[in-house]
Amino acid sequence: MSQTKPIILTGDRTTGPLHIGHYVGSLKNRLQFQEDHEQYLLLADTQALTDNADNITKVSSNVLEVALDYLAVGVDPVKTTICLQSHLPALAELSMLYLNFVTVSRLERNPTIREEIRARNFGRDIPAGFLCYPAAQAADITAFKATIVPVGDDQAPLIEQTNEIVRRINATASVDVLPEVTAVIPKMGRLPGINGKAKMSKSLGNALLLSSSPEDISAAVKQMYTDPNHLRVEDPGQVEGNVVFSYLDAFDEDHQAVEELKAQYRHGGLGDMVLKRRLEGILQDLLRPIRKQRMHLSKDLGYVRDVIKEGTDRARNITDATYRDVSNALGLFRI
Amino acid sequence: MSQTKPIILTGDRTTGPLHIGHYVGSLKNRLQFQEDHEQYLLLADTQALTDNADNITKVSSNVLEVALDYLAVGVDPVKTTICLQSHLPALAELSMLYLNFVTVSRLERNPTIREEIRARNFGRDIPAGFLCYPAAQAADITAFKATIVPVGDDQAPLIEQTNEIVRRINATASVDVLPEVTAVIPKMGRLPGINGKAKMSKSLGNALLLSSSPEDISAAVKQMYTDPNHLRVEDPGQVEGNVVFSYLDAFDEDHQAVEELKAQYRHGGLGDMVLKRRLEGILQDLLRPIRKQRMHLSKDLGYVRDVIKEGTDRARNITDATYRDVSNALGLFRI
Repeated sequence: MSQTKPIILTGDRTTGPLHIGHYVGSLKNRLQFQEDHEQYLLLADTQALTDNADNITKVSSNVLEVALDYLAVGVDPVKTTICLQSHLPALAELSMLYLNFVTVSRLERNPTIREEIRARNFGRDIPAGFLCYPAAQAADITAFKATIVPVGDDQAPLIEQTNEIVRRINATASVDVLPEVTAVIPKMGRLPGINGKAKMSKSLGNALLLSSSPEDISAAVKQMYTDPNHLRVEDPGQVEGNVVFSYLDAFDEDHQAVEELKAQYRHGGLGDMVLKRRLEGILQDLLRPIRKQRMHLSKDLGYVRDVIKEGTDRARNITDATYRDVSNALGLFRI
Repeated sequence: MSQTKPIILTGDRTTGPLHIGHYVGSLKNRLQFQEDHEQYLLLADTQALTDNADNITKVSSNVLEVALDYLAVGVDPVKTTICLQSHLPALAELSMLYLNFVTVSRLERNPTIREEIRARNFGRDIPAGFLCYPAAQAADITAFKATIVPVGDDQAPLIEQTNEIVRRINATASVDVLPEVTAVIPKMGRLPGINGKAKMSKSLGNALLLSSSPEDISAAVKQMYTDPNHLRVEDPGQVEGNVVFSYLDAFDEDHQAVEELKAQYRHGGLGDMVLKRRLEGILQDLLRPIRKQRMHLSKDLGYVRDVIKEGTDRARNITDATYRDVSNALGLFRI
């Protein structure tokens, strides 16, 4: 890996196997990034603990699931370093250090954290690790000296928080020991769940997993939310909020054909079944090789473990070196 | 070191050389503890950063000073493991883990933290690391599986916080992977500063350092606060709040003689000069061998560094093993 390639950090909390929302939102981009970036892919098990301390089994049992998803879609462990967060001590060391450079009230003001606290109904019982996770995320990013981090548009404040910490560390050290980071917000927005809800999530029961069987795919497309007022084929139908069209936008590579279908649907005379058959064909074609590769790999979990182990060893060297760089630049005692 | 000895953790923030208040409050006890306990002595540089992120040089430049003080008073590196907090990654790893098992509001309710936040005039700008330091302290204690921690009486809530975390970890793991800890509050209370203020502190300019020269000692005793209304030798004097008597209580081993002097002082007819001469003699005798040993050691800082390095290596093995124990007991993913 050449040091001249830009460094990108990305990853997933290991709270469940990945779904097609992950595919369009991030996985597909990572296949591009690994060609011309030095890409690190973090299996974020310790971050997942910040709101799953009461369900650690969920977090640990999904490490291999997420790694399988990565490999099945085509993440190449030679080009991309897949590594496990809980086995990189420098991430914890940098996190603890950075917590001294951010105030409690600044963390509480972070819009992403405020929204996520609301969504989780923590009330007054916010785990301290959850409030502090922007500092931990800054540690993750900077430990790899990443300059590019892909994030959802709701997460841009976390990157701003990272850069504030970077600037404070560099100012305190009087040297630019850490680079600032640029958030890359994917063109493709968040894919809705098959029931039309804004968020696709396994726990909400509205997700289509990458590991889905042909029957799962078929059933999911059948259930898919369209326009509830589009009762007869000849009626005009609504495209906005129609999940089938959202998915065609995301997965159908023939954009012109999709635009024509939208026009026809709006005008009336195009049935949901025609659209769903088209979408199902596309999803079956997309997921067939992924499912096949995933099943193949799942028979050799020793290989998947080795990929994680080797990637984590490589990442440990890099992140340990960064912690040393930062400690030395700040003037901590050396032995 | 036999594993049957009780394990004790203690230490000091590396924010300045130690003074005679540390001697009576903790150092003297440590000389006892090292004979029949497995004693770990933490040079707490990362904890010192929680309120000194703007003055890291102070923290790092005092690591060797505190270690010199330890060795000069007779801490034996064969019996006591002297180790450096910032070089023990498991302490950060356990801290980050424990932050998921304590809520923000619980940290904010901690009486010690509330008082210390007030004392430091942080206002709304509390560094997150400062609010979180009870979890970090729980990490320090449990990483060594210590069951005994000497603390000032104002710090007992921190030990209660540690035990709450221990119980939550053990309950989550369904096994007692960590022992609960007992706070030992030293019989000798806090030594006042030479000006009579409740706290002796180098930064308040009212401390007598262990490294003080004979002239420093002499000058300090001369300045020492007595009874401002005790103007003539024959007047009755006040013993309470009289620093010379506080110090005689702490350092004069002839307790009966001290009680007689107190009676005479209360009655009238005993001058401050007589008392101060007595105290000065005792302090000169106490500090002479410490100063001599400190000067001797300060000519061989390589040895002092080696003591810290060897102790830290030993402590790293122990604390890493604890992090593995805790991770495995909680069911985190293993590679």
